[in-house]
Amino acid sequence: MNERLWTFAGGAQGAWRITAIHAVKGATLPPATHLAIANGESAAASTWALQGVTSNERYTEQAEKQRLLAVQQGLSRPGSTCAALIPIRKSAAWWVLTQQERRDILETRSRHIEIGLRYLPPIARRLHQCRDLAAAQPFDFLTWFEFAPADATAFDELLAALRATLEWDYVEREVEVRVER
Amino acid sequence: MNERLWTFAGGAQGAWRITAIHAVKGATLPPATHLAIANGESAAASTWALQGVTSNERYTEQAEKQRLLAVQQGLSRPGSTCAALIPIRKSAAWWVLTQQERRDILETRSRHIEIGLRYLPPIARRLHQCRDLAAAQPFDFLTWFEFAPADATAFDELLAALRATLEWDYVEREVEVRVER
Repeated sequence: MNERLWTFAGGAQGAWRITAIHAVKGATLPPATHLAIANGESAAASTWALQGVTSNERYTEQAEKQRLLAVQQGLSRPGSTCAALIPIRKSAAWWVLTQQERRDILETRSRHIEIGLRYLPPIARRLHQCRDLAAAQPFDFLTWFEFAPADATAFDELLAALRATLEWDYVEREVEVRVER
Repeated sequence: MNERLWTFAGGAQGAWRITAIHAVKGATLPPATHLAIANGESAAASTWALQGVTSNERYTEQAEKQRLLAVQQGLSRPGSTCAALIPIRKSAAWWVLTQQERRDILETRSRHIEIGLRYLPPIARRLHQCRDLAAAQPFDFLTWFEFAPADATAFDELLAALRATLEWDYVEREVEVRVER
């Protein structure tokens, strides 16, 4: 098993209680009360299961990487009792672009990395890639965010800022799964 | 199943007869007489099976892409009775680099795309990514090349030119599987 594989399973069990499942664009996910996160395949029964792998950097340049490393904090902080799983699928028009064209839209024109930096360290995140798994996946990316209850408003601002960008014109499906523990 | 998934299986059956398996760097692959190529999972028994997915462009820029599209030809040409499967694994030092640093090594300093262009259209190729599959893979990339017997010398030149680059300092395992049909 790829040690970078993660499974997010929505169902009747899991460490996180689901407070809302909201379709931002396209079809939603089936209702579930809990979210279980497992490294590798998940053996537990679930209503839905999404998989992704953490991978090498796709867009972040060295100076940006150093700024991120200087301020970001890890997952599982004791105070981070709020979290969100945001699965996204981008359009065929996005995937036909070259790397440089995607970087131009993502950062030069949309400031995706810069926007994320503004909310560090309070909002920790981990990105998982789904598009190149052997099993067909309903989404291209799964992003997992953790934060303290006091930072929930900042998190909503972060999402609103990203969704207002040119990059988001290429998002064809997005679901927001909000959880607490 | 991801429709971009391909399986290359070495064993006793397959449309391609294996003429040589040669470890260029690191461990070789077990002996096999035939290579079977299947879109998706392969149901056939085999001695070894390598999987990868074709994916979006990682390094090619728009001008290079247009030059490639203008001259490249597809796989399965009647005269292409020679072929090679070249699985490669790159080092951790490669994967920790940013995208821009990898592009700088791959093209600015190693001319990987430019070298490949010199051998078009005679040598057709398809690249498969393995690193982000859910099942752990022994290689990061599988490249499949097809050419006519008369272009076998040119193919050897292409391999020698690529292996002499700075980029190849980051290759920690490479096997060459030569086949004919």
